Amino acid sequence: MQYSIGPILAKINTPDDLKKLSIEELSLLCLDLRQYIIDVVSENGGHFGAGLGVIELTTALHFVLNTPYDKLVWDVGHQAYAHKILTGRKDIFPSNRKQNGLSGFPSRAESEYDAFGVGHSSTSISSALGMAVASKLKNEKQRRIVAVIGDGALTAGIAFEAINHASVAKADITIILNDNNISIDPVVGGLKTYLSNMTYPATNSNLDIALEQQEKSNNPASSDFSHPIHNYAAQSSNLFEALGLQYFGIVDGHNVAQLVNTLQEIVDLPGPKLLHVKTIKGKGYEAAEKQQTLWHAPGLFDKLSGKINQKKNQEAEPPKFQDVFGHTILELAKLNPKIMGITPAMPSGSSLKFMIEAMPDRAIDVGIAEQHAVTFSAGLATQGMKVFCNIYSTFSQRAYDMIVHDVALQNLPVIFCLDRAGLVGEDGATHQGVFDIAFLRCIPNMVIAAPMNEEELRDMMFTAQLDSFQHPIAIRYPRGKGVMLNWQTPFKAMPIGKAQHIQSGENIAILSFGPLGNVVKEVCKNLAQENCIPAHYNMRFVKPLDEVVLHEVAKKYKHIITIEDGSKIGGLGDAVLAFLNENNYKNEVHILGVPDQFILHATLEEQYKACGLDTSNIAQLILSLHSAQK
Amino acid sequence: MQYSIGPILAKINTPDDLKKLSIEELSLLCLDLRQYIIDVVSENGGHFGAGLGVIELTTALHFVLNTPYDKLVWDVGHQAYAHKILTGRKDIFPSNRKQNGLSGFPSRAESEYDAFGVGHSSTSISSALGMAVASKLKNEKQRRIVAVIGDGALTAGIAFEAINHASVAKADITIILNDNNISIDPVVGGLKTYLSNMTYPATNSNLDIALEQQEKSNNPASSDFSHPIHNYAAQSSNLFEALGLQYFGIVDGHNVAQLVNTLQEIVDLPGPKLLHVKTIKGKGYEAAEKQQTLWHAPGLFDKLSGKINQKKNQEAEPPKFQDVFGHTILELAKLNPKIMGITPAMPSGSSLKFMIEAMPDRAIDVGIAEQHAVTFSAGLATQGMKVFCNIYSTFSQRAYDMIVHDVALQNLPVIFCLDRAGLVGEDGATHQGVFDIAFLRCIPNMVIAAPMNEEELRDMMFTAQLDSFQHPIAIRYPRGKGVMLNWQTPFKAMPIGKAQHIQSGENIAILSFGPLGNVVKEVCKNLAQENCIPAHYNMRFVKPLDEVVLHEVAKKYKHIITIEDGSKIGGLGDAVLAFLNENNYKNEVHILGVPDQFILHATLEEQYKACGLDTSNIAQLILSLHSAQK
Repeated sequence: MQYSIGPILAKINTPDDLKKLSIEELSLLCLDLRQYIIDVVSENGGHFGAGLGVIELTTALHFVLNTPYDKLVWDVGHQAYAHKILTGRKDIFPSNRKQNGLSGFPSRAESEYDAFGVGHSSTSISSALGMAVASKLKNEKQRRIVAVIGDGALTAGIAFEAINHASVAKADITIILNDNNISIDPVVGGLKTYLSNMTYPATNSNLDIALEQQEKSNNPASSDFSHPIHNYAAQSSNLFEALGLQYFGIVDGHNVAQLVNTLQEIVDLPGPKLLHVKTIKGKGYEAAEKQQTLWHAPGLFDKLSGKINQKKNQEAEPPKFQDVFGHTILELAKLNPKIMGITPAMPSGSSLKFMIEAMPDRAIDVGIAEQHAVTFSAGLATQGMKVFCNIYSTFSQRAYDMIVHDVALQNLPVIFCLDRAGLVGEDGATHQGVFDIAFLRCIPNMVIAAPMNEEELRDMMFTAQLDSFQHPIAIRYPRGKGVMLNWQTPFKAMPIGKAQHIQSGENIAILSFGPLGNVVKEVCKNLAQENCIPAHYNMRFVKPLDEVVLHEVAKKYKHIITIEDGSKIGGLGDAVLAFLNENNYKNEVHILGVPDQFILHATLEEQYKACGLDTSNIAQLILSLHSAQK
Repeated sequence: MQYSIGPILAKINTPDDLKKLSIEELSLLCLDLRQYIIDVVSENGGHFGAGLGVIELTTALHFVLNTPYDKLVWDVGHQAYAHKILTGRKDIFPSNRKQNGLSGFPSRAESEYDAFGVGHSSTSISSALGMAVASKLKNEKQRRIVAVIGDGALTAGIAFEAINHASVAKADITIILNDNNISIDPVVGGLKTYLSNMTYPATNSNLDIALEQQEKSNNPASSDFSHPIHNYAAQSSNLFEALGLQYFGIVDGHNVAQLVNTLQEIVDLPGPKLLHVKTIKGKGYEAAEKQQTLWHAPGLFDKLSGKINQKKNQEAEPPKFQDVFGHTILELAKLNPKIMGITPAMPSGSSLKFMIEAMPDRAIDVGIAEQHAVTFSAGLATQGMKVFCNIYSTFSQRAYDMIVHDVALQNLPVIFCLDRAGLVGEDGATHQGVFDIAFLRCIPNMVIAAPMNEEELRDMMFTAQLDSFQHPIAIRYPRGKGVMLNWQTPFKAMPIGKAQHIQSGENIAILSFGPLGNVVKEVCKNLAQENCIPAHYNMRFVKPLDEVVLHEVAKKYKHIITIEDGSKIGGLGDAVLAFLNENNYKNEVHILGVPDQFILHATLEEQYKACGLDTSNIAQLILSLHSAQK
């Protein structure tokens, strides 16, 4: 696919080219960038609104900074498309999020302009501060370090930890607060209220003070400059100044000239400083400005009408797992007044939004705050609430200590619903949900389940909220669709730690965990035609293991194949090996799972294939064992 | 040991008894409490300064609150001794931190007065907020929820996440900020600077405003009370008010009368509120007030002279592993200007303090901020620095996502020195460093090492900082002493992923990981007298595994015993099983490690014995295999 590129953008290959432009041309460049992003994303998919919101900021930053020598760190990275286009990746931008193409996020492996790899939120200040401190130590006086962070990302604890340190680290760093009042869903919390109440348009009076101070500092008689920030803390009426940052703003983030001027004035000031910029997510594309959550990553759309593509065929399809969760928790909550739903900033992504709309007191978005989400859930659980804490598998890594220390150690029956478990497709390496089985399995008291289909997810959720169940449990389910058209099955209690026997067979038993069981079923169906009949068990639980079934399998089948959409290290396969070893069985075990490497962006199908988790690879393994037997 | 108990304390068995006292008697009770804690801790050990600092606060809280119906959450829990003594545990307080005795931290399993189990910092606001939201939903109008958090603990991200949410959660919660300017080491960061600059003595003018508002709220004509906090945000000059909390303070934390009055006035105000209390860590014991870090947990001491007990025999002893780290990093840093040392609030505990004193620009305490510590280290590493990021194993759980996403995914050569890995003794379940092998082993690019002795720790540290080594690495070592008197050995590069062959043997091979190798050596020495000679390999690395050695072992020895001071699930044993399975070996494997349960407080010896990791258990296993062979 060839895309037409506007005349100014056509001349830009690296940020050096940008520096030849006038301010007026920079504004025109922004139009070209916006159009190019709309053109490509409408036909390729990807993140949309965040990128449109920072086109002027990106342009101004690359105009003022000397990247890649200067270090520019984008938080999360949903918004970095203009950055990629301006830094040598214009022509390959249509390969975005495709196998062997550009990553959807900044990536150090991809470009020297990507100063820090991101994907998870709120790391930019910490990493940039590290760069700034290193730069200071190396006496690199010319190097500027800039982090761009959204107001949503600022609610995560690590950002606060970094600001707390930045103020005393004596390093030169510029933090750009990209304040647009939204992350994927609207931003939550006291900080948002505070920012919303800050006066707009800008009062840049601090600029004069800071510049005055700088002049003083050039005068060796002025003695207090080594800690310029300390002057602010006591007297300040501003949250950021109270925390020790120099504060500048508010600047209109869609005014390139104002951005350039302000950046030029402050970026060389010593010490830690924050520039408060207001932007509009989706800026310049009306539909995206109006429905910001929908247009965060709208999929393919018609750029002229603003209509998001619907599936062409109107055949009924199985629901997404996230929607099964979202509808089921609401259904259960109507039956059990103790049920609550918690999400750290993913009401749409988790589909907890249905319950938030219906029962706003019992379903809560706590902001980008996985740590708090888990310990808050633990607090609720101490009072007898049945808490479904929904976190993407990859983001649950951020609350690991809280899962161990606040939930499992106290054996509190918090129900973790880990969405996007397994491979995740185009979001790539930063978002793979493949470590959870390993990092949860070592935690005492934890129950770990994975449904093979919608009905099992519903029954696991139903079972977890029963008073008879008193353990923490993780129910992990994948991104994307299930397999059942009529998925609203009646609730049934599911015995904890019991596997489902799907079929008996000869010589070979397959133990699957989670939705890959459906792939195994398909493989088995095909193999039956070749008279190859392996047994198949859907394990449902990796902890506790169904030892009755494992004894049976170990005795009856020479070959055992385990299959899971998580890291081979520490997963079901290892659990089965440990069981067999403990019980002196000597079966041949074949472990299928995600290998010990980070799996890059590609389609789900490509990723599963790359990991040997597709029908043809699985069939091949089974057939080779089957033939060897003959 | 019988302790004399002062006359007022003698009358107190539960907080109900407290309520019969006059304010004057409460002050006298504080004297009794202080004396009892000094008496018991001087002879039993435990945490000291933190407890002395909150005696008046504890007394006032239990006087005003109706615990255990009201929920009182202590952050970290170092300071909860007076709380335990006042809540039915006075007589068993001398069993503190002993096997089957009281836990050194609040524990839900121990007492209904311990509203939330703690040990790791900064969880109190989140958990209390959960309780408050549950209480609101259940319409429990009388229940008060109070969290007590130190200014040090407030620097950790989760506390900020919780405050951000608290301000919009519409729940009634009182946060007591116990501001004493120190955690274990002095508090670090912009927040500390801010708090230090706040005016003392108190200005309680807010109290009047809040009370006025409350009156208004009783008047149905007043419409804006549903969000009282919103009135503060825009106009406020106070950090906490900016974040949406009602702020009260500053109160003298050693004035019981003032504390009682203030608490009585604010604890029933609706909404989230923060009471700022200034205390002195170690209050009432002169030596502890003067040297607050030393007296955080001084060990045994003579209470009259204030002299901390020295070892009775003056024999030379091997150093603590933490000191080997502390001296070695400084030694290396003198040779390699790229080396930096990072600690999240543990300069004393990690012994990074030696380098902080000698090279303050290159060794940095970032505050209680494990997440930031890791991503900050990653940022430093992008600029070519060789960063030793020292975190206790148990606290590294808090930075898990950053280890995965910011370090390993980018393959940045950050050197994690995980202190207190393995069992930790008296600190108990919250502090065990037993999950790290499992949760790190599944991460691609990670190298995981454990030294058997001081020399190996030094060589691992030396090797990790060489330019030829370009991976993240975790070097895990235990609490307590090493085994070498002359430990300052010359640096040698250690081949990555190579095991050390200690002895050959017959029939049985023991693979040890870490310092338990010394126990194995001792066992082997004893067994030699019975003509039982197992082989012994010190693995040094659990990732990558030494496959050459494993092939050799698998071929030569029928029985393989693996031994490690980490969770059996996901550890060396599982790694060896996976290797053997992959390579079609059928050896008998015996996995020794920490079982799948939380290990409670006891001495290290008792804990190792309970896990079957003591000489006698190990010897017994070897002998049983040896005899069976005959």
